[in-house]
Amino acid sequence: MMMNVQLTIPTMMERAEKFFPKKQVISRYSNGIKRFTYKEIGKRTRQLANVLENLGVKKGEAVGTLAWNHHRHLEAYFAIPGISALLHTINIRLDPQQIAYIINHAKDKVLLVDDCFLPILDAIKYHIPTVEAIIVMTDEESVPATTLTNVYEYEALLKTGSETYLFSTDINENDPAGLCYTSATTGNPKGVVYTHRSIYLHSMALGLADTCAVSEQDIAMPIVPMFHVNAWGFPFACTWFGTNVVMPGPFFTPKILAELIESEKVTIAAGVPTIWMGVLKEMEEREYDFSNVRSFISGGSAAPRGIIEKYEKKFGVPFVQAYGMTETSPLVMASVLKSNQQALPDDERYEYKAKQGMIIPGVDMKVIGVEGEVKWDGKEMGELLLRGPWIASEYLNDERTTDAFHDGWLHTGDVVTVDEEGFVKIVDRTKDLIKSGGEWISSVDLENALMAHEGIFEASVIAVPHEKWQERPVACVVLKDAYKDQVTKEEVLAFLAPQFAKWWLPDDVLFMEEIPKTSVGKFLKRKLREQVLEQYQSNL
Amino acid sequence: MMMNVQLTIPTMMERAEKFFPKKQVISRYSNGIKRFTYKEIGKRTRQLANVLENLGVKKGEAVGTLAWNHHRHLEAYFAIPGISALLHTINIRLDPQQIAYIINHAKDKVLLVDDCFLPILDAIKYHIPTVEAIIVMTDEESVPATTLTNVYEYEALLKTGSETYLFSTDINENDPAGLCYTSATTGNPKGVVYTHRSIYLHSMALGLADTCAVSEQDIAMPIVPMFHVNAWGFPFACTWFGTNVVMPGPFFTPKILAELIESEKVTIAAGVPTIWMGVLKEMEEREYDFSNVRSFISGGSAAPRGIIEKYEKKFGVPFVQAYGMTETSPLVMASVLKSNQQALPDDERYEYKAKQGMIIPGVDMKVIGVEGEVKWDGKEMGELLLRGPWIASEYLNDERTTDAFHDGWLHTGDVVTVDEEGFVKIVDRTKDLIKSGGEWISSVDLENALMAHEGIFEASVIAVPHEKWQERPVACVVLKDAYKDQVTKEEVLAFLAPQFAKWWLPDDVLFMEEIPKTSVGKFLKRKLREQVLEQYQSNL
Repeated sequence: MMMNVQLTIPTMMERAEKFFPKKQVISRYSNGIKRFTYKEIGKRTRQLANVLENLGVKKGEAVGTLAWNHHRHLEAYFAIPGISALLHTINIRLDPQQIAYIINHAKDKVLLVDDCFLPILDAIKYHIPTVEAIIVMTDEESVPATTLTNVYEYEALLKTGSETYLFSTDINENDPAGLCYTSATTGNPKGVVYTHRSIYLHSMALGLADTCAVSEQDIAMPIVPMFHVNAWGFPFACTWFGTNVVMPGPFFTPKILAELIESEKVTIAAGVPTIWMGVLKEMEEREYDFSNVRSFISGGSAAPRGIIEKYEKKFGVPFVQAYGMTETSPLVMASVLKSNQQALPDDERYEYKAKQGMIIPGVDMKVIGVEGEVKWDGKEMGELLLRGPWIASEYLNDERTTDAFHDGWLHTGDVVTVDEEGFVKIVDRTKDLIKSGGEWISSVDLENALMAHEGIFEASVIAVPHEKWQERPVACVVLKDAYKDQVTKEEVLAFLAPQFAKWWLPDDVLFMEEIPKTSVGKFLKRKLREQVLEQYQSNL
Repeated sequence: MMMNVQLTIPTMMERAEKFFPKKQVISRYSNGIKRFTYKEIGKRTRQLANVLENLGVKKGEAVGTLAWNHHRHLEAYFAIPGISALLHTINIRLDPQQIAYIINHAKDKVLLVDDCFLPILDAIKYHIPTVEAIIVMTDEESVPATTLTNVYEYEALLKTGSETYLFSTDINENDPAGLCYTSATTGNPKGVVYTHRSIYLHSMALGLADTCAVSEQDIAMPIVPMFHVNAWGFPFACTWFGTNVVMPGPFFTPKILAELIESEKVTIAAGVPTIWMGVLKEMEEREYDFSNVRSFISGGSAAPRGIIEKYEKKFGVPFVQAYGMTETSPLVMASVLKSNQQALPDDERYEYKAKQGMIIPGVDMKVIGVEGEVKWDGKEMGELLLRGPWIASEYLNDERTTDAFHDGWLHTGDVVTVDEEGFVKIVDRTKDLIKSGGEWISSVDLENALMAHEGIFEASVIAVPHEKWQERPVACVVLKDAYKDQVTKEEVLAFLAPQFAKWWLPDDVLFMEEIPKTSVGKFLKRKLREQVLEQYQSNL
């Protein structure tokens, strides 16, 4: 039979050291750029692994990181799983109470933290009793003043570790390797544990010609934060494949990103749509040479079709959407066109490219609508269910597991359509769907239509309870300043009418000053719904 | 943690049916070409699986195939593992006694056989008692006359199976899925068992951008026989990725291959060097449009540098060497140049391209010479050791297992050098190495040098025992007709002298009429050595 060789993360770094010792990690910091070879990164990673072991980190224990995308964070990505501990990447945008919650929930024993994020730890220092040591990463001469105790400086500490330290060989591929918390609509964040196997297979998937085709030939820039689902797996895949990596570092702007892409001859970069909108604006204002770019990967939320077309048609930069979530490692879909779709007229091609795309090898999907599996007609809506070796089976020690994981599938909570080609389009979240008389109305579709109105700045559509139809849609609209008090409810409804079935049209249009948002800028529909219901009740 | 989803072969066919129902398998037969969609192939595969189950094939039992590359063989590739049985591909070029041996050794319960290979079974029918049914695959009206019993016709039998038969879900990824025997220098062939996991991971590796980058965009032609290490895994990978596959069918010639490549717009094809030499000759004689080809993959033995250069420079056809063996699934190396190598002058680039290449992700290597691990200087020789999830750990029920598998590594028996880039070059087989006074002399290096002499048609260098030096090289040379009796031993040695250290030069040069060869055209050095030793002894 075949060798029982485990699929583990240390083998990926070992390959970079062995076959790509001269390839580079290019790490931007506030005052410039540092360049390291994989040979150097390998040695530093081994030193860090040794240091963590000396600090008493044991197999299965968690080490947290609060950090931007830089070379030291990459070292942590391999050193922590390299001693069979858990790489716990902490989202620095959570509020301090939530950060304290997840540090406690994960039982982080050591934290690696960028100097700029020390104030976060200062604020919660009395609430994180499991933490025994804090390692500060800085490019300055010294660590900033802090009231924290057991604080070490990364570079000084590294010198105490051995460059030839051997990674753990006592790793089963199903051992935990990583941990990432995802925000919940209500309550505390939920933890997802990645295994060596899931990260290994997911990295392999990133290298497939039909997904992102990450290659040694690339110069890759993960703009998506390393505290966001492992920067979508790029740090792992790039190291394994010997790809030059450009780490954009702290507090970057669209201008900084555009300059890096040009100067470092980046071929592939990954980020959320807001990043790409910013870079696009930058490109429209100044001239950049992006001729080396072969793919900008966009994920996290849907990129508007207009952006995709502008990148490709105006600037000749290939733009690919990808879909995934914390629970899915994340990559499960990419809007890479099949050969027959490539041959279509532009309009149809961009129709497909604006979708989330097709399930990649290794993952399986099922879409369940009101009456079982939906027809693949691009119209019938259902919830997306996923299954595969890099899909989570639970939340870490969390009662909410059963909501999302049952019958062997992850219930994503995303409402989608599937077309004849198997391309998936997200139309809504199940919780934001409006269930009207046994039919589903997509709030997102209505919102997109509303936002195409010249006077509307932003719009959100929510469900309000209805005696006969269970639920009915109500539109909440913020007008652009120049249009304030110039647009009526009737005009808005008349604008929507030609685009939708009559029963889809909102029962009401409410004009507002602003729409409540989450910390990452998404509409906070729960809050909005409360506001609207209050308003309705007070009107009774 | 992550879902416990098994990496199994049926999921690959299911993906083709679901997402690529219109993509095609293009199957050449003696009188033309048949085209099937993956939707049709999927239904037929399910029918075949059902049929095999009805014939009594149980989990873990072997089903043998004696067949060319065609759509039915592809169906067998998925139907047999689809009922968790073993796909045993039988090398039709073995002699009948060996075929009988492996059928018995594998305990094949059912055989699938091309009509043209029925005479082989006729010859051994009394010696294969485990076989309960023979399914004949033919494109003719009826099965040829045969004295065999329990013979069924494939298409007629298929009609008795259900198109909606469900593949087994009771498969652990470590269950056996395939079986292939490899010839041994002495004794019977040795069996290698592939698992669902090894085939799945190997297929994924074929899709990596840095290896073969098999993609949905491709039109792939596996010329390498499907009885040769699963046609290097192409049938599995292509189906999984929804790639159009061109099956070259029976008794093809270089002309037939060239015409297929042109007419079917093949983008990637895989075959042994002799195939590529034949196709090259064809290209030099007639004009073909190969503009769609993005890669010809060559493996099985080393392709001469001249061939590679001619393909690329004269015809603009990218040519890539790959390395592997039955024990390695087979892909473990590919001569895909790294970015820094791409930028080199032609001469250096082809120096690298003529090597077997670099270890691909997932596999690890070690090269052990006279004094432990060799230097990566492109000179020091050592035996290539391999390790990885698609490398065998044993031969099936075979005492010879311990020769090749020990200390957790496969000892390939190939003697190689490794250069600074990590590129591996095979210089010899361990058994053909000449061990002279504690140093190694490569017979292959001497042979290549000899064959560059204008008067020499072919040459083989063997070791003869020596009192002082243990072994010394002797060259066996066949002169071209025009040079018969025109070249002396002294001339040959003088020709070699400037190219080698003095102690490498053969002690003797023997002129012969021919060099004994194996059934596949390789030098039969064992036989040659016996002949030479006999000659020496009779001269005493």
